Amino acid sequence: MTGDFFHSDCPLPLQQYSHVLMAHGGGGRLMHQLIEQLFLPAFGTNLDWQHDAARLELPHGRMVFTTDSYVVSPLFFPGGDIGSMAVYGTVNDLSMAGAKPLYLSLGFILEEGLPMKTLWQVVQSIQAAAARVGVHIVTGDTKVVERGKGDGLYINTSGVGIIDHPWHITPQAVKPGDAIILSGDIGRHGITIMAQREGLAFETSLESDLAPLTDSVQILLEAGIEIHCLRDLTRGGLATALHEIAIAAQVEIEIAENQIPICEAVQGACEILGLDPLYIANEGCFIAFVPEADAAAALQTLQDPSLIHPHPSARRIGMVKHQTMPKPFNFAEGVVKLNRTMGGTQILGTISGEQLPRIC
Amino acid sequence: MTGDFFHSDCPLPLQQYSHVLMAHGGGGRLMHQLIEQLFLPAFGTNLDWQHDAARLELPHGRMVFTTDSYVVSPLFFPGGDIGSMAVYGTVNDLSMAGAKPLYLSLGFILEEGLPMKTLWQVVQSIQAAAARVGVHIVTGDTKVVERGKGDGLYINTSGVGIIDHPWHITPQAVKPGDAIILSGDIGRHGITIMAQREGLAFETSLESDLAPLTDSVQILLEAGIEIHCLRDLTRGGLATALHEIAIAAQVEIEIAENQIPICEAVQGACEILGLDPLYIANEGCFIAFVPEADAAAALQTLQDPSLIHPHPSARRIGMVKHQTMPKPFNFAEGVVKLNRTMGGTQILGTISGEQLPRIC
Repeated sequence: MTGDFFHSDCPLPLQQYSHVLMAHGGGGRLMHQLIEQLFLPAFGTNLDWQHDAARLELPHGRMVFTTDSYVVSPLFFPGGDIGSMAVYGTVNDLSMAGAKPLYLSLGFILEEGLPMKTLWQVVQSIQAAAARVGVHIVTGDTKVVERGKGDGLYINTSGVGIIDHPWHITPQAVKPGDAIILSGDIGRHGITIMAQREGLAFETSLESDLAPLTDSVQILLEAGIEIHCLRDLTRGGLATALHEIAIAAQVEIEIAENQIPICEAVQGACEILGLDPLYIANEGCFIAFVPEADAAAALQTLQDPSLIHPHPSARRIGMVKHQTMPKPFNFAEGVVKLNRTMGGTQILGTISGEQLPRIC
Repeated sequence: MTGDFFHSDCPLPLQQYSHVLMAHGGGGRLMHQLIEQLFLPAFGTNLDWQHDAARLELPHGRMVFTTDSYVVSPLFFPGGDIGSMAVYGTVNDLSMAGAKPLYLSLGFILEEGLPMKTLWQVVQSIQAAAARVGVHIVTGDTKVVERGKGDGLYINTSGVGIIDHPWHITPQAVKPGDAIILSGDIGRHGITIMAQREGLAFETSLESDLAPLTDSVQILLEAGIEIHCLRDLTRGGLATALHEIAIAAQVEIEIAENQIPICEAVQGACEILGLDPLYIANEGCFIAFVPEADAAAALQTLQDPSLIHPHPSARRIGMVKHQTMPKPFNFAEGVVKLNRTMGGTQILGTISGEQLPRIC
């Protein structure tokens, strides 16, 4: 699976240097070879890699700026790799702020000895992902660290987008009575990564949900849905996202366990491993807070099978109950209630960290 | 020197956790403690760390976007540290594009086991540097990697700035007849880092030249100097910067060795170690290409002792001779000529990498 998309002829640096050397990060001839022969052909004339900064025309609107570093291990996994993740992850942060993603920066931290072919594969994947969402990689940087001071490669992408609509999509806009829409089944990314890492048997049936959410947000906006808040369900999963929003909006949230779609493979893996899917990271799922009156239309829009990326398993999973007293941020506080399928109510707290490290 | 600025009381996470744990990057309670108790107090309300993206008002003008990762070793050195470097380095890239720096993002890759006190020191340093140049850290990200997969901490800062003047400051604007102004003596950063790393004796007398160049560019613009191109002399040093600009502008450049200021400690260290100061990295030096008619005014402006950051040793080091034939980028080509103090001419080629790894 990993090497399938690697069909192109190796560019010159790959032929001369099968592995990354310290000198590839030194600002001299070898770094320029990398830029000229590997990065520029992939990212084209939009990239002002050599001259340290890109000059850009920004259309009228509010600007959104975000950053994320990617340290996922392994670098390649079913459904994606660190390259596509570095594009979609940052693009999704812009989308969740209600922005149209425009420009990305790309910072590599390479470990000495990284196979040049691996770097080439990641660059190809970045190129394909950026083309898919129509975002331009306009500036970049390469550093090389000694063997044993990294783990193959780490990537930082920062992103700039523009808000070209009048809505303020933010946790503070969440109101009592809002319906909570979940875009799809949860837990696939985290379980896929764990399965890859541990060599578990169910890995064959499972792929990460890694996907760009740009179109999904765009169609909701175009359908006239009054979106109050959006959040992708990355580190910490659905439970942590709900908890953070509840705290920021000073509201109490109630969700129904039997409305949360989870595929069989994830459910099975979680039972075997003792993991709670509500806390597992996703890379292509999000929640939307919309007025109850817009909930049906939002679901219909997301589920529309004629879309490029339909969300057939999108569900209304719960609602915002009532305002809470303004309080300092406190993880012990019970603000997200889960109505269990087997009966009873569970307060969703937060865990101290991620159940699986280096998930993104 | 290293710990001198660390006078504040430790915030709570430092008291509870003396070292960074994997869970500090997991999106749960510990990561939120870091954000709430370490990052937010330092970077204030401008920082939208929790909600993944910052919404910004951008004044009218052309936008500039840049990124750099910092992997300097050691983390602290005479004249600076990885934190101040992550601010000034990225701000300087914006300044060199003729932009006014406005916003920075901040991405940490922390190694498990990093002393929390070190992280705190770096955060304090970032805060002080950002305040000094008036730039706002508006969005951030924290990842933690296992022991032995990093080297304490790496930082990525991306920057957004605005060009609010009509000039196009770019290598392509360089013209035959342009004078080349060098802002100060070269080689201090690289030699300082090497001395620190190797424990060499001359380290006591030497400090990195790490400094923000924002004001220097601003005063040149305010003085009405017609700036064609600016470039800071980081990885690869003065020689590489000149070579890159000569190639991009398709011109031949001639500089005079006896006009290039080098302090005694750097000169001595280079002689002992067999290093060429023309290729040593700097963090607070730049070159400006201006019309010959503006050269005297540019020098006078930079040398003005009443400035906050005067450049007393700024010099006119040479000029742009004539246009060359358009050619593909070629490092073997002789386009930068150095007139030696002892007589004769040397063609400045490029080295394959940096003489010193992990200089920035």
